Amino acid sequence: MDDLPKRTANHVPLTPLDFLRRSALVYPTKTAVVYGQLRRSYAELYARARALASALERAGVRRGDRVSAMLANTPAMLEAHFGVPGSGAVLNSINTRLDPASVAYILEHAESRVLLLDRGFAEVARAALGLTGARPRIVWVDDPAAQGSEPLGNLEYEAFLATGDADRPFTMPEDEWDSIALNYTSGTTGRPKGVVYHHRGAHLNALGNALTFGVGPRSVYLWTLPMFHCNGWSYPWAVTAVGGTHVCLRQVDPAEIFRLIGEERVTHLCAAPVVLTMLIHAPEEAKRSFAHGPVSVATGGAAPPSAVIDRMERMGFAVTHLYGMTECYGPSTACAWQEEWAGLPLSDRATLMARQGVNLVTLSEQTVLDLETGAPVPADGRTLGELALRGNTVMKGYLGNPEATEEAMRGGWLHTGDLAVMHPDGYVEIKDRAKDIIISGGENIASLEVEDVLYRHPQVMEAAVVARPDGKWGETPCAFVTLKPGSEGTVTEEDIVAFCREHMARYKVPRTVVFGPLPKTSTGKIQKFVLRAQAKDL
Amino acid sequence: MDDLPKRTANHVPLTPLDFLRRSALVYPTKTAVVYGQLRRSYAELYARARALASALERAGVRRGDRVSAMLANTPAMLEAHFGVPGSGAVLNSINTRLDPASVAYILEHAESRVLLLDRGFAEVARAALGLTGARPRIVWVDDPAAQGSEPLGNLEYEAFLATGDADRPFTMPEDEWDSIALNYTSGTTGRPKGVVYHHRGAHLNALGNALTFGVGPRSVYLWTLPMFHCNGWSYPWAVTAVGGTHVCLRQVDPAEIFRLIGEERVTHLCAAPVVLTMLIHAPEEAKRSFAHGPVSVATGGAAPPSAVIDRMERMGFAVTHLYGMTECYGPSTACAWQEEWAGLPLSDRATLMARQGVNLVTLSEQTVLDLETGAPVPADGRTLGELALRGNTVMKGYLGNPEATEEAMRGGWLHTGDLAVMHPDGYVEIKDRAKDIIISGGENIASLEVEDVLYRHPQVMEAAVVARPDGKWGETPCAFVTLKPGSEGTVTEEDIVAFCREHMARYKVPRTVVFGPLPKTSTGKIQKFVLRAQAKDL
Repeated sequence: MDDLPKRTANHVPLTPLDFLRRSALVYPTKTAVVYGQLRRSYAELYARARALASALERAGVRRGDRVSAMLANTPAMLEAHFGVPGSGAVLNSINTRLDPASVAYILEHAESRVLLLDRGFAEVARAALGLTGARPRIVWVDDPAAQGSEPLGNLEYEAFLATGDADRPFTMPEDEWDSIALNYTSGTTGRPKGVVYHHRGAHLNALGNALTFGVGPRSVYLWTLPMFHCNGWSYPWAVTAVGGTHVCLRQVDPAEIFRLIGEERVTHLCAAPVVLTMLIHAPEEAKRSFAHGPVSVATGGAAPPSAVIDRMERMGFAVTHLYGMTECYGPSTACAWQEEWAGLPLSDRATLMARQGVNLVTLSEQTVLDLETGAPVPADGRTLGELALRGNTVMKGYLGNPEATEEAMRGGWLHTGDLAVMHPDGYVEIKDRAKDIIISGGENIASLEVEDVLYRHPQVMEAAVVARPDGKWGETPCAFVTLKPGSEGTVTEEDIVAFCREHMARYKVPRTVVFGPLPKTSTGKIQKFVLRAQAKDL
Repeated sequence: MDDLPKRTANHVPLTPLDFLRRSALVYPTKTAVVYGQLRRSYAELYARARALASALERAGVRRGDRVSAMLANTPAMLEAHFGVPGSGAVLNSINTRLDPASVAYILEHAESRVLLLDRGFAEVARAALGLTGARPRIVWVDDPAAQGSEPLGNLEYEAFLATGDADRPFTMPEDEWDSIALNYTSGTTGRPKGVVYHHRGAHLNALGNALTFGVGPRSVYLWTLPMFHCNGWSYPWAVTAVGGTHVCLRQVDPAEIFRLIGEERVTHLCAAPVVLTMLIHAPEEAKRSFAHGPVSVATGGAAPPSAVIDRMERMGFAVTHLYGMTECYGPSTACAWQEEWAGLPLSDRATLMARQGVNLVTLSEQTVLDLETGAPVPADGRTLGELALRGNTVMKGYLGNPEATEEAMRGGWLHTGDLAVMHPDGYVEIKDRAKDIIISGGENIASLEVEDVLYRHPQVMEAAVVARPDGKWGETPCAFVTLKPGSEGTVTEEDIVAFCREHMARYKVPRTVVFGPLPKTSTGKIQKFVLRAQAKDL
């Protein structure tokens, strides 16, 4: 059996590029993309992506070159997810909420040859280019819906597409290990790191997500999650793989989300927890009911509190909790539903559903490793360790950073930096980021655990807990709390502390409570390092 | 980006073995296997598969060795699909309907180390062993439901499992190109050929089938399709990948199928067309209605006639037509449903649905190649060529047969030997096996086309058309027809010919019509070579 080598007929590099070719063949006239009044079929999406690939090649882009994108969730961004790798290049989606210095750093570090730039982000890009010698060729996307300054340069996207050949086949990867995307970490500490994805992982994570989330040819997927965020958790590729419909969304606006769900009959969306909170707290006149069945919502980044799960369900959504990070193509674990949970009271059910869960079928393994010994912790739901992942949807590594690459993947596992427990049922639950643990009087306090309690307080909308240096205890928990609209001023620090005392061990109760809005990263993550600095100065 | 090599953390050989490990973790107590009164959970299935793997290793089976199985669709056969590759060995599932000489040939050619033998097939196995020097170690499976002779040898399956360690992890493939299965072609012409599958293809075809067929954690899959047939079209792995439930079925019996569908709430099954015919023609008292929604039926091997689609739908089934062959892990194309077909009259809809369709998302490409030039034929629905496939779910090759391997995969495509047209919508439709074309007076007649017309005759149950040598025309079409029960003797040769004249060009009308049962292979395929011999002697 050893004399049967790979052949052209039986070994083809795995790549998501095949998905678009196939869907354009199978569903040529079906609506692939919706954006406002615009409707484009799969045949059109494929033709435009091929035109983009061809235009890039004619503009001198070569295999392995980086093409950056500062684009909103518009049709151009979807096209870039196929057209850029279809030219052999690597797609570098830049977080459009970054400051000019970060954008400059990325353009320089990625050595971008081309920048696809939405007019809405021209000002940031102009400022960024003022801070670096990087000179990518700019192709500006003139979205009429964009608010923004004058375009940068004179090469407009549609004119650029017209220089390409829409009939020219994609340049396919020579090897499935070839790079497809370069995504920079949000850099809450230190410089952003450039995470490299390969075609194999993108293909597999797309299939795994489609299977996990039940996305099929009849699915209508709403783009609430930014596509610059881990390539939209692989959904540009997953939805295309099954021939579903993409509904683009430039800006997260609850009224528009409810309108699109109803009018486009949206079946699936992904969103950070903050978006769920926005939907729940949207004014009543913005909300709509929809009759086409529950809308599947995948959320990740922080565990959805039971109140969020409950209120989302009442509005007609079914929430699934996912876990992932830039280093693993977005979603890598999901809190797989168990039929017997249906009979549980909401609070019990929500506790189970808020866990990060089990590895997707396309990731090989997850484990929780003891921080000292590196051995798996017991599955007792109590022993803290570091969540670690292994499989084909783990990054190639960090661009130009062998030390960080080695450190992240030492010992055969991707070390997530998240502190978790392994429950007896094999589900992991993240208790905190490694650096978010508060050590008070020698006791470890998981800030997430304290936050969980704070979220249960009826007037609390958001909460974050960090360590505050303390002469006696080393550190003490310091809580930052945003109250619900209308509740401001009605709740005191003493109320919060009293509530916490009822619900947790004494040593975990915050010694300090600060009210006000929470600082967030451009991807909606609470910036604990800002809060830590604030807590220090209190 | 070129300095980011594969690592243990980010590159794991694709294998279906991971599916069972995961489902045993995620769904330990969920019912994995149903067989009569027997219920086994995923934890139990995993433990038994590991015990089997370990027992095989302790019995001296080494990586790459072949373990043959002559098993019905019983729990042991499912266990073999994980336990055998989990020992590093290659699973050789033998068609249990074969004659002793064929079984002997396979055992010898495969160099089987072990034979897992259901007591029901002991007689054939005993006869086979009398014809060969091959001496695999026999492990007999004592299914109480089996009719059969005395067991062969004294090593019983449960006792054998007890010699293994149920906690010992599977021996995982070193490379995803490692062989996982060896399936012999049915050998309608010449010696059976040994088709070798690899772990990568088995993993991918399982995911592709789960996505195509919509199999998920709530699915209940009924084993109407023999698992020895292309490893049950990859469904032992696909259903396990998503944590669905396998319902085993020893023998195809319409009453039992209807009972299981109703009582076990079956959602999916695969079956050769002959099984659908059996369900349709089952006595009314054997039929049952079921309220849990349409049961998805995937069928392949021959296009389902519109009457079959219609009558299956009326009974509560939704039929999907698949195409595949041993050389490509079973299903490789499927007639993907288009929403607009729903509005068509049945006959038009059935014509569209009876096509072989489009490649699965996990196969890269399909094409129809001109028999002379080897170039793709125009997509006109008329020009005949050979269906060819390319992708990761195409076999490694034939065991010990480099010439046949090279011939089958020449020019970068797997040549299926099936004559097809490419329709303008990109769907392929098989018109005939290359050797089933009848050449009469210089005109090509596709026997399938004549058969299609015969199937439309209200009294015809089955029909097959072959070439009959003719002094004047070279060949003429000769029809073999089985009438529906109760219609025997009511229809004459003249009636059939008159019916054909109404529905096809004159030169295609059969010159000869023979009534009676049709000879079939053990997988239910009509043996045209037998009919051709018969036609010659008429």
